[in-house]
Amino acid sequence: MIQAFDDAYFMNKALQEAQLAFDQGEVPVGAIITFKDQIIARAHNLTETLNDVTAHAEMQAFTAAADFLGGKYLKDCTLYVTLEPCQMCAGASYWTQIGKLVYGASEPERGFVKLQTKLHPKTKVVKGILAEECATLLKRFFIEKRNLN
Amino acid sequence: MIQAFDDAYFMNKALQEAQLAFDQGEVPVGAIITFKDQIIARAHNLTETLNDVTAHAEMQAFTAAADFLGGKYLKDCTLYVTLEPCQMCAGASYWTQIGKLVYGASEPERGFVKLQTKLHPKTKVVKGILAEECATLLKRFFIEKRNLN
Repeated sequence: MIQAFDDAYFMNKALQEAQLAFDQGEVPVGAIITFKDQIIARAHNLTETLNDVTAHAEMQAFTAAADFLGGKYLKDCTLYVTLEPCQMCAGASYWTQIGKLVYGASEPERGFVKLQTKLHPKTKVVKGILAEECATLLKRFFIEKRNLN
Repeated sequence: MIQAFDDAYFMNKALQEAQLAFDQGEVPVGAIITFKDQIIARAHNLTETLNDVTAHAEMQAFTAAADFLGGKYLKDCTLYVTLEPCQMCAGASYWTQIGKLVYGASEPERGFVKLQTKLHPKTKVVKGILAEECATLLKRFFIEKRNLN
């Protein structure tokens, strides 16, 4: 069976990144950046490992994608991220001028939607792709963490 | 004469960082982070050099300061930055829980004030320190750049 390169396909790749974060004791958020249906950056949250609150999956993916393309802007790229970006990451996406932003689970408290972070006018937004799977991994992480403490 | 460690003293250090950016052809923004009146991080904008729109002075300073302290949070630290932070940098400051944010020149278009980026509730804000000097360096940069093109 040939699998189409649709949003669910790439979100699944982002979920695999989130699982890597989970396995390392990091809040499980994963991100992928594509350019012409090719994955050019993969990243997951590394805030604990790097001891750095700015080491969100998206921030690392932006840096890696720009490095790969040899240009600062990501106009023809799509970011897939398992959790709705925060102000910092949405603010970074503004500077990258990313073409499309696809996220899985919503973040009703600290996500960019509620906090009304301004995206680049050319950025299209798609939400809710594999939302349940993305949210389940996060819930499982926090339940396990609570039981350990 | 003994110079007091006041906001102007540290903003002047941030301005020195901005001048380094200027000399490298970078938009001249500089940042300093202090902990108990000691400078623990110095950084300037490196978006051109690193080919990375996320390489704002503040982002680098947050990472360097957390690395120096060996802890992710900057609760007892002060950020001095020559230009009002953008959404990304203000959003990052939220995660760092920085104690105090001092900026020089205002950024009425893309600054966090107009865009209403949420800061951490414990972050105190002081604005306008050496504002004219900070703004003059930026204006000089853009005038020179325009004349070169």
